[in-house]
Amino acid sequence: MTTTVPPGLRGVVVTATTLGDVRGDEGFYHYRQYSAVELARTRSFSDVCALMIDGALPDPAQSRRFAAETAALREVPSAVAAALPLIATAGGAPLSGLRTALSLTGAALDLPPLWDADPPTRRAAALRLCAVTPTILAALHRLRQGLRPIPPRPELSPPADWLHMITGAEPSAVHVRAVERYLVATVDHGFNASTFTARVVASTGADLAAAVVAALGAFSGPLHGGAPDRALAALDEIGTPDRIDGWVRDKLAAGERIMGFGHAVYTTEDPRSRLLRDTARELGGELVEFACAVEERVVALLAEAKPDRPRYANVEFYAGVVMEICGIPRDMFTPTFAVSRVVGWVANVLEQATERRIIRPAAHYVGPPAPQPVPA
Amino acid sequence: MTTTVPPGLRGVVVTATTLGDVRGDEGFYHYRQYSAVELARTRSFSDVCALMIDGALPDPAQSRRFAAETAALREVPSAVAAALPLIATAGGAPLSGLRTALSLTGAALDLPPLWDADPPTRRAAALRLCAVTPTILAALHRLRQGLRPIPPRPELSPPADWLHMITGAEPSAVHVRAVERYLVATVDHGFNASTFTARVVASTGADLAAAVVAALGAFSGPLHGGAPDRALAALDEIGTPDRIDGWVRDKLAAGERIMGFGHAVYTTEDPRSRLLRDTARELGGELVEFACAVEERVVALLAEAKPDRPRYANVEFYAGVVMEICGIPRDMFTPTFAVSRVVGWVANVLEQATERRIIRPAAHYVGPPAPQPVPA
Repeated sequence: MTTTVPPGLRGVVVTATTLGDVRGDEGFYHYRQYSAVELARTRSFSDVCALMIDGALPDPAQSRRFAAETAALREVPSAVAAALPLIATAGGAPLSGLRTALSLTGAALDLPPLWDADPPTRRAAALRLCAVTPTILAALHRLRQGLRPIPPRPELSPPADWLHMITGAEPSAVHVRAVERYLVATVDHGFNASTFTARVVASTGADLAAAVVAALGAFSGPLHGGAPDRALAALDEIGTPDRIDGWVRDKLAAGERIMGFGHAVYTTEDPRSRLLRDTARELGGELVEFACAVEERVVALLAEAKPDRPRYANVEFYAGVVMEICGIPRDMFTPTFAVSRVVGWVANVLEQATERRIIRPAAHYVGPPAPQPVPA
Repeated sequence: MTTTVPPGLRGVVVTATTLGDVRGDEGFYHYRQYSAVELARTRSFSDVCALMIDGALPDPAQSRRFAAETAALREVPSAVAAALPLIATAGGAPLSGLRTALSLTGAALDLPPLWDADPPTRRAAALRLCAVTPTILAALHRLRQGLRPIPPRPELSPPADWLHMITGAEPSAVHVRAVERYLVATVDHGFNASTFTARVVASTGADLAAAVVAALGAFSGPLHGGAPDRALAALDEIGTPDRIDGWVRDKLAAGERIMGFGHAVYTTEDPRSRLLRDTARELGGELVEFACAVEERVVALLAEAKPDRPRYANVEFYAGVVMEICGIPRDMFTPTFAVSRVVGWVANVLEQATERRIIRPAAHYVGPPAPQPVPA
């Protein structure tokens, strides 16, 4: 017995979730019962991790405990630390290096299958994988440049430690807060392809690292989206305010996509873009002025070209601007996204683990009738 | 707009495929238009790889070319070879080691996203990943025992080389042929959870290694099934023919599952089990006699316990017997399964890559109404 559904399972409800949702036509998304944008404006990344993983926003005492508990988990297992130089020099994109190192971390920690693990064991694995992700990414970044990794400093908040481990410099409070907003705003975003992948793997009862490693694979796909460096590259290409209109018209005439604009789910402004525009404006400077000018003209010219389907800046556009100003190298923009999204993945895996049912759809065979005789 | 479907997407058709199908009520499964069991009885593993990857069974000249082409790809990239000792000693199951090493292989080969790659580039990546999988698994197996890996020998067929790289001994033609049948019989099996995972990741346009690494994650899950060592452990536990009935009745009374029996899709005998029983009988010996006696009694007692739902031996039962007789260590049973199944995964990825559409279903939010005010 088979059921036929829309292509790509679009709109097909696979599971129930209490983790959040995206309301594309309202320009609104939420983590559990809270507006994600409001969380980004008012709460720490650590508190939002607690919300996603433990189910509730912590009070001040719980917040300190959670921060201390996770800060102590940032060191990578020694077997992984030993392999990082080889992983860094093997080649590939930074996310491939993270994928290899997290796979090795899962092995080194000998994580049990999700279904053999009780909730505290699963939670411990989830916290550990989230905590080592920035350490691994920053270490690989340094090693690729022939530099020694900078060890994590548990007294720093996750965004501060992230900036410190990448740049080697003491980050300013303003930069830390800007990056923190970006991290909170990108923890989760509905049932995207990487989140779905994590849940499919979790549904087999595999261990948490297997699910996160699989999610990273989907996350690396060009259709998944999320490459804030592309939008910034467009700003470079345009160069000066007087060239904006010509550049946009050329792109539209060539039928090319303008990176950083348009979204599959939001028909209104992307709420993450609005948040990050405000954040960029607070940081200020020439790049922000230029980006705002580009945004205004691109939106206007896109509306002129397709009045019935307005497109707006998406999360990538101001994310790149914010990260650039905060001193994050461009090849670490997408890895910064992975630092937050891994929290969404593990939260989804923990939720999926409570449902002991495999996700296993069907395919429809359309080849020649079988069996045909096998030629000798 | 959402569509509600059966739990776990059971029976929901996600895609069309020409790769094959399983007809559970007929006890029949096929690769492209050929009976998989007939292929296992009559054709080489290499030829079946060509069938799955290139779309047709090769004629003798094509068969020699394909075998030579893939034999030359068995060496692992040097960056991966350098990391294997660290991966072997880090811990975890053999499949976790393979997952890490294939992730690193993807990075070392700097595989392009599927959508940036033309079909010959994709095919080359597919052949390479299949060819290095046994080399990696055998090397990790040797390294875990403190032994030096045995390099691949391109003049050997894949099953002969696999046995040689694991055991260090020259394999007999009879053992090679038995293992080859097992490999052919397990290349693919409908739209299982690991195959689906590979296709979800491929649908994002990610690279081939990302998809295979993700599939390995799902493959490692206890609900995915496929652990031929468990069935053999049951034979050990029973010990002697006179203890069969008592052991089975105790299991049934305790409500425990009997490993190696029953299948989610086959309502008849599992065609793979029939093939591997024949193969085991050809190998002969005390273990085979005992296994046949156990099968007969388990099937009879299961039918007695649930007359309306007969259960039969599944692929695991005789697979373990065949591999044990051929000298494969028990912790390499599931890795042997991975050696063949990786071929099914890459064939599915190559097929998915021709369809430029992301697989992205939806989740239904069931938490408290949002937004609620964020507490300070």
